Amino acid sequence: MTAQTNQRIDGRRLWDSLMDMAQIGATPKGGVRRLTLTDVDRAGRDRFSTLCEQAGLKVRVDAIGNMFARREGRDPARLPVLFGSHLDSQPSGGKFDGALGVLAGLEVIRSLNDLGITTEAPVELVNWTDEEGSRFGHSLMGSGVWSGMVPLEKAYNLADTEGVTVGQAIDAIGYRGPEPAEAFPADSYFELHIEQGPILERNADQIGIVTGAQAMVWYDAVATGQDSHAGTTPPSARKDALVCAARVIDLVDRMMRARGEEGRGTVGQLLVSPNSRNVIPGEVRFSVEFRHPSDAEIDRLDAQFPREAGFIARDCGVKLEIERVFKNPAQPFDPECVALVEQAAERLGYKSRKIVSGAGHDAVYVARRMPAAMIFTPCKDGLSHNEAESIEPEEAEAGCQVLFEAVLARANRTL
Amino acid sequence: MTAQTNQRIDGRRLWDSLMDMAQIGATPKGGVRRLTLTDVDRAGRDRFSTLCEQAGLKVRVDAIGNMFARREGRDPARLPVLFGSHLDSQPSGGKFDGALGVLAGLEVIRSLNDLGITTEAPVELVNWTDEEGSRFGHSLMGSGVWSGMVPLEKAYNLADTEGVTVGQAIDAIGYRGPEPAEAFPADSYFELHIEQGPILERNADQIGIVTGAQAMVWYDAVATGQDSHAGTTPPSARKDALVCAARVIDLVDRMMRARGEEGRGTVGQLLVSPNSRNVIPGEVRFSVEFRHPSDAEIDRLDAQFPREAGFIARDCGVKLEIERVFKNPAQPFDPECVALVEQAAERLGYKSRKIVSGAGHDAVYVARRMPAAMIFTPCKDGLSHNEAESIEPEEAEAGCQVLFEAVLARANRTL
Repeated sequence: MTAQTNQRIDGRRLWDSLMDMAQIGATPKGGVRRLTLTDVDRAGRDRFSTLCEQAGLKVRVDAIGNMFARREGRDPARLPVLFGSHLDSQPSGGKFDGALGVLAGLEVIRSLNDLGITTEAPVELVNWTDEEGSRFGHSLMGSGVWSGMVPLEKAYNLADTEGVTVGQAIDAIGYRGPEPAEAFPADSYFELHIEQGPILERNADQIGIVTGAQAMVWYDAVATGQDSHAGTTPPSARKDALVCAARVIDLVDRMMRARGEEGRGTVGQLLVSPNSRNVIPGEVRFSVEFRHPSDAEIDRLDAQFPREAGFIARDCGVKLEIERVFKNPAQPFDPECVALVEQAAERLGYKSRKIVSGAGHDAVYVARRMPAAMIFTPCKDGLSHNEAESIEPEEAEAGCQVLFEAVLARANRTL
Repeated sequence: MTAQTNQRIDGRRLWDSLMDMAQIGATPKGGVRRLTLTDVDRAGRDRFSTLCEQAGLKVRVDAIGNMFARREGRDPARLPVLFGSHLDSQPSGGKFDGALGVLAGLEVIRSLNDLGITTEAPVELVNWTDEEGSRFGHSLMGSGVWSGMVPLEKAYNLADTEGVTVGQAIDAIGYRGPEPAEAFPADSYFELHIEQGPILERNADQIGIVTGAQAMVWYDAVATGQDSHAGTTPPSARKDALVCAARVIDLVDRMMRARGEEGRGTVGQLLVSPNSRNVIPGEVRFSVEFRHPSDAEIDRLDAQFPREAGFIARDCGVKLEIERVFKNPAQPFDPECVALVEQAAERLGYKSRKIVSGAGHDAVYVARRMPAAMIFTPCKDGLSHNEAESIEPEEAEAGCQVLFEAVLARANRTL
């Protein structure tokens, strides 16, 4: 078959693997609900293990559930080249966010096997735990613990809305592994992911050469007013927590737009109490996040937002507490690794462009510990975190082929 | 005892009855959670029945669960004078909203018994079903069906957030009674209730002589945008349903304040979907209500609000559907019945004032069928629909004494 003749990965096999994994947690609307550390996530992990073993790899699991599958190289002295992504999804997520990077990584291994290639350095496939953060409120958890950015105990103690902790959930699905949850010596890390934005599609590009990730800051906010009767409480006596939250939401949107197309500002989560139609809301809890390619802009937002939100709250007669959940600086990727991605895309003749990642990715944390780079493929209408998330088989194949060649080049480079 | 000598109700006994009923559905914070047609509501109804029987009255239940207890008068030809309120509460409600009117009514019956008084006309105590509307989304349900404002079948088919219908819930607690759920011939209706607002307290008044109720209009709104990734979707590509809802919430507040202290405008209920911190909200469902003493103002609001909200949605690139749930004109009470309340307050030397009800009350629907009036007592800080809702024993006693004298005067008037 052609794959034998000039080192092509098998796009058909990759697509079949993607469609197969998409059955696990499949939703009626064609999306995926595979929340981290649930029975559905376990099913996805079990399937991944089986596929790795069928490819001749032994799977190791660490204390936070990260899964590693190494293919040995010729030179035992060399450090492994890592690649992968995550199998967990958003509550109403798509088939490709995360799964593409993991299953393309599997296809790289399968192709190396088919082609009878022995790399100089070992290559190692990774499935990171809880990239999405939608269940326990902390994204990039597995890669964050592994790279030393998040203390293991802190991660174990995070709880979901039912009060179930990460520690309880990971034991419930049997994925608290024996390996220490910390970075082991490795040469580099590559991750293929869908863009989750509209830029590549708008420009008809097949490959995004990701040069780095945005800076971001996340907050938890609680507006506390006074719940009272909606029909009898005159305007002068109202302390409406929802009116306060509404004006803060508008502020977030305006602060984002003031920074042009590179700005990001979102309130994604909001809960009203007591949430009864004829009661003035006494408490509103909501999330706030800002992202921008420039650390300086995030610092400015981090200084301005709490102050301006405080003025709004004062005008509303409402108490507003804003806690910064986390703040990440912009993360540039390794120039050499980025160059390998760029050269692969050029050699293969794919139309590509350099791009800054708008989303947080495991590669951003891993990049704190070793040289790293990412490859983006376009997704339909730039849609992600949505059941309608969609890509074409050729797009998956192109991204996987670039990953294959970049990993191969890195693993075989002369030191 | 003094009650025997000059026709006083027993304030101590009334207070004990209030504290006793407050045990049923008592919350840790000193409030009450007695949602309509739940097991807790059944417990309250059963207790009420027992107390009525102990006072020598037979309890009748109609097809929507309204409970009636009649004390016969001397003249069988005369129509009964009704009085009462409701025993259901808000999700985090207080001890007195509704219960005061029912148990003060019981105290009127008990006092008539103690004083050996036989009224000319029968007097009849009522407990209306689901006044609050917080479980099935339709307030004043029992009195609405009884007075012909709400079709019985429509009421039976209303469902709570778990999908349980009124018909199923009323059978589950065994309170679908044999009596037809429709108004029977009656002379008049009196209702004692806490003000649920700050006006009486601010003016150090003991009694509010309620001359009528506000006009109101309620809406259900659904904002539909597009959920997508918060980090990758640039401002120009966003269709954020929550930003749209936030600006509509601000609009509601501004339209209220433009009408001064008589205006009421509230968004009490709001649900975000998918409600994940790094996903731009694709859908927001929320309630909107306006109230005002003037029908003309409500008509103006009803004309302006949907139009102006539509402009906001268009600017946000979001689809906004606004459905009017119901619209009630202002309801003036019967001048003769109001005069009886006023005369009683004067005779008893209570500091009082005429007041318009800001809340919807069963009396407003009943007033469509017969002469009606209401008596308000102050509540601490004007707080209601809140576990901190509080009144003083003397305030309850004063209100009950006025109810007693107004009912007695009406039942004994010469025709």
